[in-house]
Amino acid sequence: MKLSENTSRELFAAARSACLGTVDAADAPHLVPITFAVDADRVYFAVDAKPKSSPHLKRLDNIRRHSAVCLLADHYDADWTRLWWVRADGVARILTEEEDRAAPIRLLIAKYPQYEQPPPQGPVVEIEVARWSGWAFSEAATSP
Amino acid sequence: MKLSENTSRELFAAARSACLGTVDAADAPHLVPITFAVDADRVYFAVDAKPKSSPHLKRLDNIRRHSAVCLLADHYDADWTRLWWVRADGVARILTEEEDRAAPIRLLIAKYPQYEQPPPQGPVVEIEVARWSGWAFSEAATSP
Repeated sequence: MKLSENTSRELFAAARSACLGTVDAADAPHLVPITFAVDADRVYFAVDAKPKSSPHLKRLDNIRRHSAVCLLADHYDADWTRLWWVRADGVARILTEEEDRAAPIRLLIAKYPQYEQPPPQGPVVEIEVARWSGWAFSEAATSP
Repeated sequence: MKLSENTSRELFAAARSACLGTVDAADAPHLVPITFAVDADRVYFAVDAKPKSSPHLKRLDNIRRHSAVCLLADHYDADWTRLWWVRADGVARILTEEEDRAAPIRLLIAKYPQYEQPPPQGPVVEIEVARWSGWAFSEAATSP
């Protein structure tokens, strides 16, 4: 069954991680997992301090070139009547100024205590969501 | 830490679900969760019989138009030292002939008993993976 916009947004906001999809210079899709926080129709994620294989992040290069992004949060269960997923389609922009980063960083810390020490130092990405959508096997699938 | 190609492939093959990224007609990324089976450098997924919001699947339209796809399987954990993800970049093609579908459907049923009755009736997508990559917080993150 199709989920409503409100249910999709709520389930998305409560998810602990999501998959971020961007499009690269060769027009190929590029996926990475992210942690994120939601404020109304905006999703925020930070480039944090976890060890990375490269300091140069393809996700940011892709967004600079092509701002349309897609986010997916899903629940897998061996019992397929419990499956659900929610998707956010939107436009991303990169926030580098301290005054723009402060509020999103607070939201991220409120959701993930892991971000408290140290808070993410890099850019924050803001996604203005144009469309929330989702699917669940049944109404019961999305209840805890 | 960066994961080797072999470790990335092994972790991906053992994952129960992944995120499929395609690119749509407007050059925007499009994500859906999939169940899948791996055979060497090929990943297979089927359009199965679970209820769908629409009989017309955007993921197949996208692949027909633009065959580059990206797959991501990841492990989220509240303990961030346990995080890992693996990615497969490749080229997809849609198999509709019975003789092409048979072996992939057997692989899917072997991995997911849920596919046994009834087996998926729709097309199977084959992804020839050109690159396996991945990241883990530490070596310990990917051990059970």
